Amino acid sequence: MKALQTLFDRIVQRVNINLRETGYDVKPFVKDLIPFDRLIKFYAFYGVTPHHLLDLQFRQSNLAGSYFLGKCHTTNSILYKSDIRGDELKKKGDIYHYKDFQIPLSEDEGIRIEDSFLVKTLIHCFSHDPETLEDFFITNTVATHYANIHGSPIDGSFLGPFVTVDLTTTNDCIIGAYSYVQAGEIDHLNLEPGTVWVRSPELFDFRYRHSQEQLRRYIHFESGQAPQGLLIDFMRERKEDFQHIYNTVNLEPYDAPETASLDRYAVVKSQTKICDNVLVAERAYLENAYLGKGANAQEHCYIINSRLEGYNVTAHGGKIIEADIEPNVLVGFNSFLRGRPNSRLNIGKESIIMPHTIIDIDQPLTIPAGHLVWGHIDGQDDLASNSVALDQLAKVKDSLNIGDMQFEGDGGAFVTAFRDRVHHILEANGAFFDGVEKKGHAQKNQNISFNTIQPYPDGELAGLYPTIIIRP
Amino acid sequence: MKALQTLFDRIVQRVNINLRETGYDVKPFVKDLIPFDRLIKFYAFYGVTPHHLLDLQFRQSNLAGSYFLGKCHTTNSILYKSDIRGDELKKKGDIYHYKDFQIPLSEDEGIRIEDSFLVKTLIHCFSHDPETLEDFFITNTVATHYANIHGSPIDGSFLGPFVTVDLTTTNDCIIGAYSYVQAGEIDHLNLEPGTVWVRSPELFDFRYRHSQEQLRRYIHFESGQAPQGLLIDFMRERKEDFQHIYNTVNLEPYDAPETASLDRYAVVKSQTKICDNVLVAERAYLENAYLGKGANAQEHCYIINSRLEGYNVTAHGGKIIEADIEPNVLVGFNSFLRGRPNSRLNIGKESIIMPHTIIDIDQPLTIPAGHLVWGHIDGQDDLASNSVALDQLAKVKDSLNIGDMQFEGDGGAFVTAFRDRVHHILEANGAFFDGVEKKGHAQKNQNISFNTIQPYPDGELAGLYPTIIIRP
Repeated sequence: MKALQTLFDRIVQRVNINLRETGYDVKPFVKDLIPFDRLIKFYAFYGVTPHHLLDLQFRQSNLAGSYFLGKCHTTNSILYKSDIRGDELKKKGDIYHYKDFQIPLSEDEGIRIEDSFLVKTLIHCFSHDPETLEDFFITNTVATHYANIHGSPIDGSFLGPFVTVDLTTTNDCIIGAYSYVQAGEIDHLNLEPGTVWVRSPELFDFRYRHSQEQLRRYIHFESGQAPQGLLIDFMRERKEDFQHIYNTVNLEPYDAPETASLDRYAVVKSQTKICDNVLVAERAYLENAYLGKGANAQEHCYIINSRLEGYNVTAHGGKIIEADIEPNVLVGFNSFLRGRPNSRLNIGKESIIMPHTIIDIDQPLTIPAGHLVWGHIDGQDDLASNSVALDQLAKVKDSLNIGDMQFEGDGGAFVTAFRDRVHHILEANGAFFDGVEKKGHAQKNQNISFNTIQPYPDGELAGLYPTIIIRP
Repeated sequence: MKALQTLFDRIVQRVNINLRETGYDVKPFVKDLIPFDRLIKFYAFYGVTPHHLLDLQFRQSNLAGSYFLGKCHTTNSILYKSDIRGDELKKKGDIYHYKDFQIPLSEDEGIRIEDSFLVKTLIHCFSHDPETLEDFFITNTVATHYANIHGSPIDGSFLGPFVTVDLTTTNDCIIGAYSYVQAGEIDHLNLEPGTVWVRSPELFDFRYRHSQEQLRRYIHFESGQAPQGLLIDFMRERKEDFQHIYNTVNLEPYDAPETASLDRYAVVKSQTKICDNVLVAERAYLENAYLGKGANAQEHCYIINSRLEGYNVTAHGGKIIEADIEPNVLVGFNSFLRGRPNSRLNIGKESIIMPHTIIDIDQPLTIPAGHLVWGHIDGQDDLASNSVALDQLAKVKDSLNIGDMQFEGDGGAFVTAFRDRVHHILEANGAFFDGVEKKGHAQKNQNISFNTIQPYPDGELAGLYPTIIIRP
């Protein structure tokens, strides 16, 4: 295991050098995060389909339990149970529109992971950085449990647990646990845990920060300890259900319409109903869930004892328990929405639950239709200070402060950006498939072959995966 | 599946061109041998260990259910449930001794499979051809069910079911079902089914041919039909036991000493006892078997209700049922030795059961110690015409005819060659491991990681495996 230790030390050193300005040492955070013997034990896997550009290269890396789809080159890195989705990569010749620029792609886009350590991290194509459209890099970076790296090239950064970096090029930054950032480009920032920040330069700026005391109950991460809190416990309690799907070669297929797709690495428990054009991604967890037409359940999301009427987006890591959700609702990344059996959560149609929102109720609660919701809501009393009607927000021209939320800029542009995005996600996922046209992931991902790969089992190279190059 | 059909047609055409002199058309023999949908369904797998040179390349091929270990480049070929063992490949700088020649290897040896169609075939390194020591090629060749290609480069040939080509470079030959040939180099031959031929040019020549009528009951293969007979039925009846090991990710480990190895793809049923230094290879089948110290059970061998006292070699495809076997006995390739519960077969120590021998008894039978046995034995009456004491054979200087067996040449050289080979096999397999030195496959193969690969599941390329290159 000597090679694995050397690799780990080298990654940590590189990240620390990048963060030297802050004096931050990532080592005590990560050194005991993953026992090395697990890095040898778990296999990694990659999907083969005719719909995705197949170009994978793994060199000098450990990939335990990780999942790859599309083009990805991984070098000198440790990836533990991470999902690398390259199924929306840009292609050579595509035109990327950025403000007034029309930028042609000079080659196929690829994800490049180098000198990085990712734990249970989701990476989703594609790079939204107009400077590096072909090269979606994640270099010299540590990302911890259930972080999402979404269309965001990253260099020299440390991401805490349940962090989402969305459409944001990130250089030399520390992003605290459960923070969400969508800000175009950030450098040399140290964001506190629970920051929710959506900025479009010169257009708008939305900021909220979770109370550190409240957040601590759900997630906290300190030097020398593994991440702890209710969110971690919640995932751990359902871990065993995933064991079965990893330990079985031929799973019993779950009943779903021909227009829908259920990933082979999703958990689907009984009482679940899948309607047309539904996409259930890998490591999604469904238990007594109704997914109406065109709904999607993305990676690491949990939908339990809940009914989603249709065209619902449950983004990466979203959790929905004991809830009834009307059509066209977005539940953002890593949100934790928990009703109780006798205190269900109702969300009206076309509402937007901002990423990293916590709703945790023991009385029934209804979110009215067409609302934007953020922050932390424990009951009816919190709703007024954590939501606004989208129509009202759309009229804002300069600023709006509600509770701990500060908004500046053009409310109309903000609402339009979110609505367009929901539409784009539904479209990409095949929600609007009409039987002939408008195919998306729900139709294209139905028949993926998964191949497994493993590291050297012992000797000096134990834990390192042999070099492997996979092409069409 | 268009690409798969094109590939199949191309292979058949190339083999026919090579065999044009004979006017032989392999197409009707093979065209319905494997339904194409199975070629898409089964995954292939390769082993990763620190002990084997890892250099695999797969291009434009289907590999359904096949197993790879070591260095192998496969191009434009269809391999169905074949075992490609490259764990004894020669290395750059090794000196190969051939008669008076000392030939240094100019590069690492590799197995190269091109434009070939192999069904349930076992390939075992390494090339014994002094002309092509680095390149163990199998090109323009069709090999059918349970053929063994053992240290034998082959070009432009057709091998029937249960054929073994052993240490023999084979060009443009047709080898009939259940034939065994070990002859150094052969060209443009058409061997009838059931031929057993061991020749060392200028030293000795052993020949036997099974009665076509008797053999037909065990195996026959005709144009337009799948292989049929008792041997095929025997394998088919035990097929289900293999399903379990392919369909399960983490198998319950079977109890074996630390010095032994049980391949993850072997079937080991209860009542089986594994002693020190035992090697059980992939697709071996053990049921109520006692394997004494240093015994080995090679690929596709079946040992049922039998006791092997130790240092026994059961070569690829050997089958032993209701038998008691004393130490240091060799049971050659594809032999079928069947006693009955009340009519057991006893084999005395240091006997050699020639490859492709059939012993099928319904009265008890004892083979005396130190005998060479060949051909077809149904009972005591056949023994005299199908065996000879090794000491007697060793004294032969010119020729010996017993029953249908014809021997010419130096009997001593023949006996020495076989005894040396048994010793070499035991040594290579780790039978003599003393706890520190003399490690072999039994010790080195204990901890192999197996990775799975699959073809494109649909579209024009359905059935073809993506190009994959695997290096250390």
